Amino acid sequence: MNQTDVKKAEGKLGILVVGLGAVSSTFITGVLMARKGLAKPVGSMTQYDIMRVGEGADKKYLHYNQIVPIADLNDIEFGSWDVYPANAFESAMNAEVLKEKDILPVKDELEKIVPMKAAFDHNYAKRLDGDNIMQGKTRWEMVEVLREDIRNFKKEHGCNRVVVLWAASTEVYVAPDKNVHYTLADLEKAMKADDKEHVAPSMCYAYAALTEGAPFVMGAPNTTVDIPAMWELAEKTKMPIAGKDFKTGQTLVKSGFAPIIGVRCLGLAGWFSTNILGNRDGLVLDEPANFRTKEVSKLSTLESILVPENQPDLYTDYYHKVRINYYPPRNDNKEGWDNIDIFGWMGYPMQIKINFLCRDSILAAPLCLDLCLLIDLAARNGRYGTQRFLSFFLKSPMHDYTVDEVPVNNLFQQYTMLKNAIREMGGYKADELID
Amino acid sequence: MNQTDVKKAEGKLGILVVGLGAVSSTFITGVLMARKGLAKPVGSMTQYDIMRVGEGADKKYLHYNQIVPIADLNDIEFGSWDVYPANAFESAMNAEVLKEKDILPVKDELEKIVPMKAAFDHNYAKRLDGDNIMQGKTRWEMVEVLREDIRNFKKEHGCNRVVVLWAASTEVYVAPDKNVHYTLADLEKAMKADDKEHVAPSMCYAYAALTEGAPFVMGAPNTTVDIPAMWELAEKTKMPIAGKDFKTGQTLVKSGFAPIIGVRCLGLAGWFSTNILGNRDGLVLDEPANFRTKEVSKLSTLESILVPENQPDLYTDYYHKVRINYYPPRNDNKEGWDNIDIFGWMGYPMQIKINFLCRDSILAAPLCLDLCLLIDLAARNGRYGTQRFLSFFLKSPMHDYTVDEVPVNNLFQQYTMLKNAIREMGGYKADELID
Amino acid sequence: MNQTDVKKAEGKLGILVVGLGAVSSTFITGVLMARKGLAKPVGSMTQYDIMRVGEGADKKYLHYNQIVPIADLNDIEFGSWDVYPANAFESAMNAEVLKEKDILPVKDELEKIVPMKAAFDHNYAKRLDGDNIMQGKTRWEMVEVLREDIRNFKKEHGCNRVVVLWAASTEVYVAPDKNVHYTLADLEKAMKADDKEHVAPSMCYAYAALTEGAPFVMGAPNTTVDIPAMWELAEKTKMPIAGKDFKTGQTLVKSGFAPIIGVRCLGLAGWFSTNILGNRDGLVLDEPANFRTKEVSKLSTLESILVPENQPDLYTDYYHKVRINYYPPRNDNKEGWDNIDIFGWMGYPMQIKINFLCRDSILAAPLCLDLCLLIDLAARNGRYGTQRFLSFFLKSPMHDYTVDEVPVNNLFQQYTMLKNAIREMGGYKADELID
Amino acid sequence: MNQTDVKKAEGKLGILVVGLGAVSSTFITGVLMARKGLAKPVGSMTQYDIMRVGEGADKKYLHYNQIVPIADLNDIEFGSWDVYPANAFESAMNAEVLKEKDILPVKDELEKIVPMKAAFDHNYAKRLDGDNIMQGKTRWEMVEVLREDIRNFKKEHGCNRVVVLWAASTEVYVAPDKNVHYTLADLEKAMKADDKEHVAPSMCYAYAALTEGAPFVMGAPNTTVDIPAMWELAEKTKMPIAGKDFKTGQTLVKSGFAPIIGVRCLGLAGWFSTNILGNRDGLVLDEPANFRTKEVSKLSTLESILVPENQPDLYTDYYHKVRINYYPPRNDNKEGWDNIDIFGWMGYPMQIKINFLCRDSILAAPLCLDLCLLIDLAARNGRYGTQRFLSFFLKSPMHDYTVDEVPVNNLFQQYTMLKNAIREMGGYKADELID
Repeated sequence: MNQTDVKKAEGKLGILVVGLGAVSSTFITGVLMARKGLAKPVGSMTQYDIMRVGEGADKKYLHYNQIVPIADLNDIEFGSWDVYPANAFESAMNAEVLKEKDILPVKDELEKIVPMKAAFDHNYAKRLDGDNIMQGKTRWEMVEVLREDIRNFKKEHGCNRVVVLWAASTEVYVAPDKNVHYTLADLEKAMKADDKEHVAPSMCYAYAALTEGAPFVMGAPNTTVDIPAMWELAEKTKMPIAGKDFKTGQTLVKSGFAPIIGVRCLGLAGWFSTNILGNRDGLVLDEPANFRTKEVSKLSTLESILVPENQPDLYTDYYHKVRINYYPPRNDNKEGWDNIDIFGWMGYPMQIKINFLCRDSILAAPLCLDLCLLIDLAARNGRYGTQRFLSFFLKSPMHDYTVDEVPVNNLFQQYTMLKNAIREMGGYKADELID
Repeated sequence: MNQTDVKKAEGKLGILVVGLGAVSSTFITGVLMARKGLAKPVGSMTQYDIMRVGEGADKKYLHYNQIVPIADLNDIEFGSWDVYPANAFESAMNAEVLKEKDILPVKDELEKIVPMKAAFDHNYAKRLDGDNIMQGKTRWEMVEVLREDIRNFKKEHGCNRVVVLWAASTEVYVAPDKNVHYTLADLEKAMKADDKEHVAPSMCYAYAALTEGAPFVMGAPNTTVDIPAMWELAEKTKMPIAGKDFKTGQTLVKSGFAPIIGVRCLGLAGWFSTNILGNRDGLVLDEPANFRTKEVSKLSTLESILVPENQPDLYTDYYHKVRINYYPPRNDNKEGWDNIDIFGWMGYPMQIKINFLCRDSILAAPLCLDLCLLIDLAARNGRYGTQRFLSFFLKSPMHDYTVDEVPVNNLFQQYTMLKNAIREMGGYKADELID
Repeated sequence: MNQTDVKKAEGKLGILVVGLGAVSSTFITGVLMARKGLAKPVGSMTQYDIMRVGEGADKKYLHYNQIVPIADLNDIEFGSWDVYPANAFESAMNAEVLKEKDILPVKDELEKIVPMKAAFDHNYAKRLDGDNIMQGKTRWEMVEVLREDIRNFKKEHGCNRVVVLWAASTEVYVAPDKNVHYTLADLEKAMKADDKEHVAPSMCYAYAALTEGAPFVMGAPNTTVDIPAMWELAEKTKMPIAGKDFKTGQTLVKSGFAPIIGVRCLGLAGWFSTNILGNRDGLVLDEPANFRTKEVSKLSTLESILVPENQPDLYTDYYHKVRINYYPPRNDNKEGWDNIDIFGWMGYPMQIKINFLCRDSILAAPLCLDLCLLIDLAARNGRYGTQRFLSFFLKSPMHDYTVDEVPVNNLFQQYTMLKNAIREMGGYKADELID
Repeated sequence: MNQTDVKKAEGKLGILVVGLGAVSSTFITGVLMARKGLAKPVGSMTQYDIMRVGEGADKKYLHYNQIVPIADLNDIEFGSWDVYPANAFESAMNAEVLKEKDILPVKDELEKIVPMKAAFDHNYAKRLDGDNIMQGKTRWEMVEVLREDIRNFKKEHGCNRVVVLWAASTEVYVAPDKNVHYTLADLEKAMKADDKEHVAPSMCYAYAALTEGAPFVMGAPNTTVDIPAMWELAEKTKMPIAGKDFKTGQTLVKSGFAPIIGVRCLGLAGWFSTNILGNRDGLVLDEPANFRTKEVSKLSTLESILVPENQPDLYTDYYHKVRINYYPPRNDNKEGWDNIDIFGWMGYPMQIKINFLCRDSILAAPLCLDLCLLIDLAARNGRYGTQRFLSFFLKSPMHDYTVDEVPVNNLFQQYTMLKNAIREMGGYKADELID
């Protein structure tokens, strides 16, 4: 084994979350509770998963942190920005995701997490109306204030390293524009010209993070770091980036269930997915404009798993439809209903229906933790640019669309990619991708 | 590549099915229709699957028959035994699984498949009352008649090789008895003593097949070849065996869905599975005695996928319950309903419900084809005894319980096992098992 | 008992259906098959229902035709208009609703039902492209040709009476316009001026029917006869009308299930209804414009059953959402999924989910029969204008919205209304409406 | 209007509940909270329902207590017996049905409700092992102690009237025996002879209640008061009785949904109902012996709603199956899954699936309240014997099986029966039963 390439996880790791809503407050509360032994961080790969390294007689089964140096939960310091001024305790209580008894034991710590003023543009999220906002700033000024925020946070909390995680709303769709988003120079020019149409606020966060030497994770479907200009910046700053869109509910199931159909060579005639959700995420997505990217990203999942070109008898012309519906009675407890029309022997049809009563924040929180810990690990390993091994956690994995790269959506292939990266960083041989 | 160890698939392959009911007639009709280009054998791995061989630069994606010599559909000859005298055409029509238009084009061929008299004991399947039965035979006489049937069939149809496939009902449970089922000598003694209590009719079929040099596949949950005495016989005759219980509906989904939960480190609190089915299989299983083995076998699926010892926080004491209900209005269109209680971050509960409207025979038919073709391949490769690489197709894979061997139930691990065997027989290197 | 007010059902009854698609061909085939004793008209109230008449000691339970003179199935003559030239046999085969064996025995009769050229305007149903169309006609000319069609049909088939039933597509929404649709004079003026924007083709059918002394039934959600001008025409011609939108699947269940919640004084927080359907109806509704009315009409169902004003603690501000999705893999087999969020004691939430795998035409066909037979009965009873007693069969019962009349949507109240009308026509006392 | 026959609800009403488990503690807590205006008694007909009285011009819509004198929530005094010594506060906390915040405001009052020692026989509920039990008593001594308990309670709490409500477990099935249960004399003889086999402990409660002038309600499926001997006692003491089995979840839906099928003359091929539940009720029912009556009672629901004799084409030979499964992960949140196979026009099949995620105690609590208040009302009206008008609240309404009386199970007919009784007691004319 040869771990020399990965720096130790020394000192404190700052995690700065953009958006201190249901997901973030559930994430933070859980980490603080787990540190006290009062809750289990269920769903977190870095805390639970056991994987094989080595082959044949040398085979061993280890936790991730027995293979590579992962930051300890006790070394994490939390900070955030939000358009609403509520602190993490208030936010956790308002979210109504966790029961009081699971929040109160860490009330003091949560109350100290008070959001910094957000870089915000109302046109990118019309349904939000908070006032904890840095006023009258151009895009470039936003970048500068955010950079200062990061530096201050690092100093005040004595952090050795910082990661920035976007856990805020879906912004209005920004289509990658060749004149603005394809080179770093063009992007910087647009920022300095305060081009509000092409520069989403989220881009200011990402730009600030990377230039301050902090990896950046995009948890919403925003195109923020999914543009060549940001890939260039990540390369220039030697920083890792990851995105986009936490793989929480229906898409998680889809990316795991489609392979069942595929490995058995059953045919697919149609897949209808509908969702009801009532939290802030649902409210924002209720606007057709905001829904567009979400839908595109959700649709792509199947195509790369059940591939018509490989099996024309089985996967040609299946009808795939995704619907998201804002439905307030459920709050954070979103629910998916899938109807899958398959066919078997001699083309005879069968149906599968999956009803997933899930909880958005409960599924997203461990993803937040893993993405932060693993992108920090990648940074210490000198990995930069898009981290494809984190696709496992993401609904719409970033890929180089300028050269038609096909992303991996199959959950089990993504899992092998994740383990292979850990293996390599731990000095072990990677497996062949399962296929 | 080195294929020298596998004999070519020359001449005709006889497939003798025990039981000419819905499953068998659907299987046979489909093969005959596919031969004429009138139907697609969807769901069959040997006819559709494409797999990787080689690694790195040598990687190739091939169909199975491009890697190993698999018998051609055109070389198959069908025969059968059944307690009812209906020929394959009548049986296919009675089953009401396939539409008339999918049967009529091969009516002539089907009518020629007339079942031989069955070796039958009413005490092993009380709900069946057919009269196409060899009368007054002891167990040993049954063996001798069946052997003669096999020899005659081979001769009459000019077959080079024969495979025997049990696609008949679930018999009453026969618990492996150390005094009868643990050595071949004891088993033969019991057969000769006409020990009706310990020797199920199905054992006579298996014994006859193996001694006639025919591989044997058990598609029901019967313990027939799942006893040390038969393993000994398989070793002695150098014949491969496989079993037990076609993995068709709910268990197929379970063995694919449980890994989704497992790879994401989500917890499991309970899994409730219920089934309604109305065909002959359901009728037989409506008797508590016949249901027992089925239940045991169905329950074992989860335990080896979500293992409490490995993840005590996640998989200790989950409550797993399986129910099968005879419900005639559905006939062959069985339906499964699963309720899965999982938990995530900080232990918060979520629910998944899966409703599978499947068709027993449509899912079983391609398994019949693949099991016959692949066990014939194994025989030509000189593989004998329990064929673990066929676990992919089976609900309750045979394993050596005398030494506490744990079977593999994870669908994706089973798939790798299947491909690895093909790779090895084709002269390629096997992958590590995914885990 | 006093039946003197209802004329006998003497001679032949012509049923002219607009649209000879899946619904119509299923309806016609079923009636022809039932006449020969080869099929049962299941779902038809006039053929099956048994109701009470009289009270106390005089109570009797009778079929409808034992109470009032309903036309005999043997006296029906079918005709139709359609934009496609396929005859009823071809249409029934194309629809793939019925099995061949349920169509072939009446092939000859079906082939004789050849559609007359349709009055059609492509702007009202953009997805349809048939060419069996009367060309170059103004709206008023359409009326005149249709009137002639009706007279000819009546003469050729020797019909004593004719009913016209719209079983064609949903047209683009025509909002009732006070300047055009509120008086008969204005409507006629618009027709003569060939005002294509305000006069839908369906209005020409209705106008022609009523002026020829034929009752008119609107089976789609079109506003055709749901305007004061048509009410005036119905009054002038003394003809009954009924509409709108056959109550077939999800709304049928909703109008029956909501009363369960209501009679138990359980609260309602939200009701989410989604639909997948793949037939021509689904295709047309896939256009947002065509969906609008459908949605409005579907939404109104709950409001009049669970009334916030009566039970503010229970029914204030529930969230009701209806979605319809075009999903071709299912063809005519549409499917509804409802999620109902209720609350009970102390406000604690519970959920009900209803998944209805229904068949549009199978549910609509008996409604076609009943609506035709009962509106013919009403006509013979001298009832004219909107027939509220037929609300039982309709998703969005017509009501006088100019005076804020509230329609009855509760299935069980509608049933009482239906029976009360039969009672009254049969000379019996009506019940109090259940409430 | 003429209310002279109903005595005023003066003074305090004692409600003595047998069993202080989840249902009872939820019931009591809710009433106490509602009294303080801190919770709404949703689901209670006496507190919410509005019904019509009078006809035609005299029609009025009133709450029940505007028609008849119903006891006020403020006048209720609670007491109980239980085999466990936990007081009502502890029991409510243990049950985990209600949130702490919905219990704490009435903690003091709840703590004062301490259960009296129970009359218990372990053989009737093997899974229970509490020790708050009156020891060494014969059946007749049990009766005497219970009578004294009632008298003491009445005196201590200054109650004007008392009602006894069984909200405890399902006992082992006691089949009505002609030699013991058919006359009061025989029953008393058996009690005195301490015939433990034929006299269930619940019978002692009922006997004690009636002889002390207290109406008795059986909320479990026990045959306690469903025997001629008890009918005789009710007649002799002029006391009303009601039973059996609270209609809470799946049966509630079934008795409301079956009428939807019936009023539309759709056919029924099969109805499969399964249940998972994890509370004490589920535990007890996990024993096949205890399940038997439950099943019988649940099965009877359909037969009296969809009657084969009336509609042989539609309701002959449908297959009805009910399964109850103990499934601890859910605790009180029981869940029902129904699959309903219907058929329509020409016999074509369709399916409906209903998934009810309900809460046993939340649905049962308002039934407890209504049954107690309405049986007290009935007593003040001089009504005695089986109160059929309370069938609305009961899964298996008591009926005189010695003369083949058919019970009413249709929810909407039961509702009319309920309202008719209120009408009559309020001096109004009853409606005809809807049919």
